[in-house]
Amino acid sequence: MPGCVLCEGEGGVPVWSGPRFRLIRTEEAPGFPAFYRVVWLDHVAEFSDLSVADRALCMEAVALCEKVLRSELRPDKINLAALGNMTPHLHWHVVARFEDDSHFPAPLWAQPQRERDTAHESALARRLPAVDAALAARFAASFAQAALPF
Amino acid sequence: MPGCVLCEGEGGVPVWSGPRFRLIRTEEAPGFPAFYRVVWLDHVAEFSDLSVADRALCMEAVALCEKVLRSELRPDKINLAALGNMTPHLHWHVVARFEDDSHFPAPLWAQPQRERDTAHESALARRLPAVDAALAARFAASFAQAALPF
Repeated sequence: MPGCVLCEGEGGVPVWSGPRFRLIRTEEAPGFPAFYRVVWLDHVAEFSDLSVADRALCMEAVALCEKVLRSELRPDKINLAALGNMTPHLHWHVVARFEDDSHFPAPLWAQPQRERDTAHESALARRLPAVDAALAARFAASFAQAALPF
Repeated sequence: MPGCVLCEGEGGVPVWSGPRFRLIRTEEAPGFPAFYRVVWLDHVAEFSDLSVADRALCMEAVALCEKVLRSELRPDKINLAALGNMTPHLHWHVVARFEDDSHFPAPLWAQPQRERDTAHESALARRLPAVDAALAARFAASFAQAALPF
């Protein structure tokens, strides 16, 4: 779709790309280094524009991203969202949240609750190459085919 | 789970309740009358705590809520989110967004972009009984059983 930033560009740091969706890491949200997005390749606006099978595939990708973040980073909570008000091209935010992050327990889009803990953020950022590699390996093992095996 | 507001109470206006999840409408977010939540009945914190089959069931409920809101209200966008930082009991926010709502295109948790359009909000609120009824009927037809038929 001409003019769509997710059709015309990666939208973030590429982590993995497959036949139906790709996984990127975004650096757009200061204070939230472990912020990934599952981007559906087709330009559709809403989750319910997908077929039942594609919704399942899409959400298994979101769930696998969540699982890897939980296992690699032990966050206090995972936040999932498909908003798309600015960019109506289906993409799922998957964000590792920590009790000491600048906004917890508020949504990351709300007003901050405290100063940023740059030491913790830097420690997280140092782990991102390993997290990206784990995500890429798990996604490759699970989603090289265009559909789920069930 | 003792102390969990979604285990101990409805959490909003009851719309439909089934064997695995319930649908409520929340009145907690001023300016967003068409704000529903799919609440998983088991007390689990994260989406990836569910089985593959339960994730599909849960997301088909989210998608059906989205479809009914689209058809009944013609919103400019649907917003979906599972955050749970305050209440770590799996629930999905399903919100109809409009270009003239107080926050669009920002997330509803962010700073407002403009004054509330109370006339539009009231017009939406008057349609909610019909929306609730449509949701209840569609959910009953689709989710009376505890599992998806595939």
